[in-house]
Amino acid sequence: MPNFLKKRAFLTPERTAVYYQEQTITFGELYQRSYQVAGQLEGIGVQKGQYVGVLLKNNLDTVVILFALQLLGVHSVILNNRLAPAELVWQLKDSKVASLLLDDSLSDTRAFINRQLPSLCTVTKGDLLTGITCEPDIQEEICLSEVCTIMYTSGTTGNPKGVIQTYGNHWWSSVGSALNLGFIEGDCWLCNVPLFHISGFSILMRSVIYGMPIVLHDHFDAEDTINDIHDKKVTIMSVVGTALRRIVDALQDRRLPDHFRCMLLGGGPAPLPLLQACVEKEIPVFQTYGMTESSSQIVTLAPEYSLSKLGSAGKPLFTSQVQIIAEDGSQAPSGVPGEIVVKGPNVTPGYLFLPEVTEEKFQNGWFHTGDMGYLDEEGFLYVLDRRSDLIISGGENIYPAEIEAVLLAHPDVAEAGVTGLVNDEWGQVPIAFIIKKAGTNPSSEELEQFCKEQLGKYKVPKAFYFMEELPRNASKKLLRRELRKWVDQ
Amino acid sequence: MPNFLKKRAFLTPERTAVYYQEQTITFGELYQRSYQVAGQLEGIGVQKGQYVGVLLKNNLDTVVILFALQLLGVHSVILNNRLAPAELVWQLKDSKVASLLLDDSLSDTRAFINRQLPSLCTVTKGDLLTGITCEPDIQEEICLSEVCTIMYTSGTTGNPKGVIQTYGNHWWSSVGSALNLGFIEGDCWLCNVPLFHISGFSILMRSVIYGMPIVLHDHFDAEDTINDIHDKKVTIMSVVGTALRRIVDALQDRRLPDHFRCMLLGGGPAPLPLLQACVEKEIPVFQTYGMTESSSQIVTLAPEYSLSKLGSAGKPLFTSQVQIIAEDGSQAPSGVPGEIVVKGPNVTPGYLFLPEVTEEKFQNGWFHTGDMGYLDEEGFLYVLDRRSDLIISGGENIYPAEIEAVLLAHPDVAEAGVTGLVNDEWGQVPIAFIIKKAGTNPSSEELEQFCKEQLGKYKVPKAFYFMEELPRNASKKLLRRELRKWVDQ
Repeated sequence: MPNFLKKRAFLTPERTAVYYQEQTITFGELYQRSYQVAGQLEGIGVQKGQYVGVLLKNNLDTVVILFALQLLGVHSVILNNRLAPAELVWQLKDSKVASLLLDDSLSDTRAFINRQLPSLCTVTKGDLLTGITCEPDIQEEICLSEVCTIMYTSGTTGNPKGVIQTYGNHWWSSVGSALNLGFIEGDCWLCNVPLFHISGFSILMRSVIYGMPIVLHDHFDAEDTINDIHDKKVTIMSVVGTALRRIVDALQDRRLPDHFRCMLLGGGPAPLPLLQACVEKEIPVFQTYGMTESSSQIVTLAPEYSLSKLGSAGKPLFTSQVQIIAEDGSQAPSGVPGEIVVKGPNVTPGYLFLPEVTEEKFQNGWFHTGDMGYLDEEGFLYVLDRRSDLIISGGENIYPAEIEAVLLAHPDVAEAGVTGLVNDEWGQVPIAFIIKKAGTNPSSEELEQFCKEQLGKYKVPKAFYFMEELPRNASKKLLRRELRKWVDQ
Repeated sequence: MPNFLKKRAFLTPERTAVYYQEQTITFGELYQRSYQVAGQLEGIGVQKGQYVGVLLKNNLDTVVILFALQLLGVHSVILNNRLAPAELVWQLKDSKVASLLLDDSLSDTRAFINRQLPSLCTVTKGDLLTGITCEPDIQEEICLSEVCTIMYTSGTTGNPKGVIQTYGNHWWSSVGSALNLGFIEGDCWLCNVPLFHISGFSILMRSVIYGMPIVLHDHFDAEDTINDIHDKKVTIMSVVGTALRRIVDALQDRRLPDHFRCMLLGGGPAPLPLLQACVEKEIPVFQTYGMTESSSQIVTLAPEYSLSKLGSAGKPLFTSQVQIIAEDGSQAPSGVPGEIVVKGPNVTPGYLFLPEVTEEKFQNGWFHTGDMGYLDEEGFLYVLDRRSDLIISGGENIYPAEIEAVLLAHPDVAEAGVTGLVNDEWGQVPIAFIIKKAGTNPSSEELEQFCKEQLGKYKVPKAFYFMEELPRNASKKLLRRELRKWVDQ
């Protein structure tokens, strides 16, 4: 397989690749700039096959750097810039990165990382892009089984895991999406979701594979989004429920233009009133189900079914398969809930440096998502519950166990339980239930500050409730579902 | 990978798959009918892994049978129904088919084949479709490296060779085409080229992979084509130059509707006046270069370049590569002609039962097409000459050596040389130059009749010229290029 960007720049050099603020760049220019940056990366010692950390924001330079890393055949460990420095240090150590590229604005984070990992070479974007360049040794051809990116995802066990995404995973995801949503000259995809998430990164990959321009925003703003859909002739965009709600509200009596053909909605089930509002405003919503491990959407619901199959995530992409596994390990008949398992060339080969976890999550080639759901008679998937206790807040996944682990490290906390509270703006926000250690009396403010030092802001509980007891089963395992019941009352 | 048709029928059972005359069939129905026919095929002893000959015409039953064979995992040897019975017998023997399915109207052909190959089981379509059925053992999953189809192509050596086309070849061809031409809901592909050619068969494969309806015609008729483009909302069609010429003529002052977005023109270079006429009539022509060995188009020229890059076949598909090899075996610089070599997952793994020929035609993974051409500075391919002496007549490839071999078998012919004469209707037609054996005096009519018995009608020379001498080089090899010069004068 040819190098994606190089091939695209050869095929359609004049076509626009990215619109970012006032800048426009063609595929030809994107290749030239990435080629130059590849030389600068070699200048700071970056080499094929290395793991290199990337801690950047949504902008044009980031796009160039991400493709430069692909030109060199580097495994990019793409880090979430909303994480706390302590979380980043954990992931940098875990992924054994040779170096870290980071945004110039993150000087405090850089100082913290340098203190914690003194032997790690950290390079700011500014230093990289003004550094000396050389003729880089680029990968003319790529192998679909090679590692392209690593993205961390947390789990019920607390420790984040690096999800391996190969070039093939991204390729098949793009092709599967094209066969499902269609692709035609004139398509333009708006990306205001983070490039460090698979939702944003997958748009970059589709751009070079399809030869399609993207409109890149550095943050979500409903009015800017609506304006660019009109001005830049955007036809598709990816959203989570929170963003879609804000777009619908901001539209008021307006309509999206006719050329806009697909609102790809991921990040958890959408509430009915929102979907109905979209039908009223003639916004073509495609609901999807996907995860970092499936390199973005693996199941999508076409808009013709958005109300008749309300609540369904749809059917799998052409090359992917979905099954429901009952508790006894057998395939559940239609209508019967069980664990959602998925298979396909867009599904990760496993977790970085975690062969046991990989083996546990894959059985006969099927990836066990940990999510619960069922298939109806016609094969439409209904997702009942994201991975046991997952909290989804504004499209970000939050795992209670990770926050509990932080709280339990506080000297005054004896027990901690975290769950999600329904929130109009974010979908859900995390809240914590605490049992104090005897003789101590920590305040909510104190615990909040403690969490802020170790967790991304969106993970910090929005409320702390001090209790006498937490719900546990006979073997003393915390019953987070019971916590949720307290909240729902 | 899931079975293509089964997966498509699961994903979009209600969508129209094929319009044929007054009939319409959905993907759900196409799967059900193919499933039933798969049972009937098993009833006559057809099994997975067998080679089975298919000699059918363009109609709905043929579509069903071709997919039924795929459901069973049979290698379909798809035969050209324009060939003479003697040619068919040769291919049936060469491919070691276990049985032959053929159209009821071909009773003379069947009788001839039965006489020549008495042990071969021949079954008419009528008998097959009225036969007993059983629950077939269908292939739920397919492997991309498995053989799907065999199509015969002749060569300069005279004997036709069976080109192996895997499921992967067809898959990547479809995906490459979608990434190149785009694909969107509402697309509809008109097929009035033969299903026994890769040009037609590839439309069938795209139909199930994209979930796109096709309009199938049993023969080419310009007025029917124009009517169906309007009535059935056809957006794309595949044509050869002859057919496009007739459509342009038949249109007169009319225009094709706006929804029609792509006229995919293959089967040899298009004459300039035709392309200009298409520009005038606003027909979006995509010129292509491809062959049976590349499972249809491998290089395509977008219409924005149709005049600025006049005469070019365009650039390769995303996953494919093209190079020009000079006589000394090195890669030719841009502008310098040489042999066109191609590479990509749509390119055949080789020729059936011909490992030596396969090895000779493939070098370092590159397939040597035998066609001459060059690449310009921007990488656009210009095809100078199809495989040395190839004659292209109405989209059918004719190899002079094959016709010469037949003529040389006539008792009165001492030497024979065949070349193509430019023809307004067909592009080219074959003509023959003959040296009679001493003491004999065969007539043109006699030779024509002799050819008709052994060659498809389109291969029979349209004129016979009796000469004293044929142009040969020092080693007495026939110089067909010199013959062509006689014709061009």
